[in-house]
Amino acid sequence: MLSYDELAVGDTFEAGETTLTEDEITSFAGEYDPQPFHLDHEAGEESMFGGLVASGLHTYCTCNRLATEAFFSRVAFMGGRGVDELRWQRPVRPGDTLSAAVEVTEKRVSESNPERGYVNVDVTGMNAEGETVITWTVLGMIRRAE
Amino acid sequence: MLSYDELAVGDTFEAGETTLTEDEITSFAGEYDPQPFHLDHEAGEESMFGGLVASGLHTYCTCNRLATEAFFSRVAFMGGRGVDELRWQRPVRPGDTLSAAVEVTEKRVSESNPERGYVNVDVTGMNAEGETVITWTVLGMIRRAE
Repeated sequence: MLSYDELAVGDTFEAGETTLTEDEITSFAGEYDPQPFHLDHEAGEESMFGGLVASGLHTYCTCNRLATEAFFSRVAFMGGRGVDELRWQRPVRPGDTLSAAVEVTEKRVSESNPERGYVNVDVTGMNAEGETVITWTVLGMIRRAE
Repeated sequence: MLSYDELAVGDTFEAGETTLTEDEITSFAGEYDPQPFHLDHEAGEESMFGGLVASGLHTYCTCNRLATEAFFSRVAFMGGRGVDELRWQRPVRPGDTLSAAVEVTEKRVSESNPERGYVNVDVTGMNAEGETVITWTVLGMIRRAE
């Protein structure tokens, strides 16, 4: 487990990859984001996406899983206060393979609790062509070295 | 379906409610946010949360489902460009019942495509005590009246 003190601004972590099937896309959307263009081919074709696309929340959750394996579970992560600037840059379609990269972009020790460090962490999700499909910044807390 | 033109800044929409079970919390976390304090009671008790808590992504997805029923599926929603200022205000624990409210906070017609309107929509998720547990702002596109 890496502590706050073992991380430096600019540190990067590369995550593995995973492929989203059509069943996974429609089942996630049915549960959490039931918009026609995430559930049905015809509705997708009539939408601005020109076909069935994954819910942006699904892309976010899937890339978060990859980012957790690569980073959040490898550091002494205490929790997240929130997320800034979550952006869906490109649609994700059935059969797309996603990967993720994580970069530490800011850090500062908590003033009220010197055992905690605040970090900003940029997460980027990419498709198999290396195009960015999603980006966001996690505002997280990481335990300091003992 | 409400068009962009039928919405006004300040319009609010109240969503239904749903209860998160412990099984749902650990199964969502196992899939998308495998942190010990979302998966295991003992790890939760040792964490800053003092017990097992839902993944913030789970709270977000669950309240998005409620917000979709109340708002996003009732307007001519074309898609979301992103989300700003997603904040987890209070932990969500097994058995908590969540509800949501949606408010239109900004709107402007697209300059490049006058058939589209941009809206900012604030979503607030609350627990049964009426305490805010999550907030975020959707940057969305809604079709204009024909």
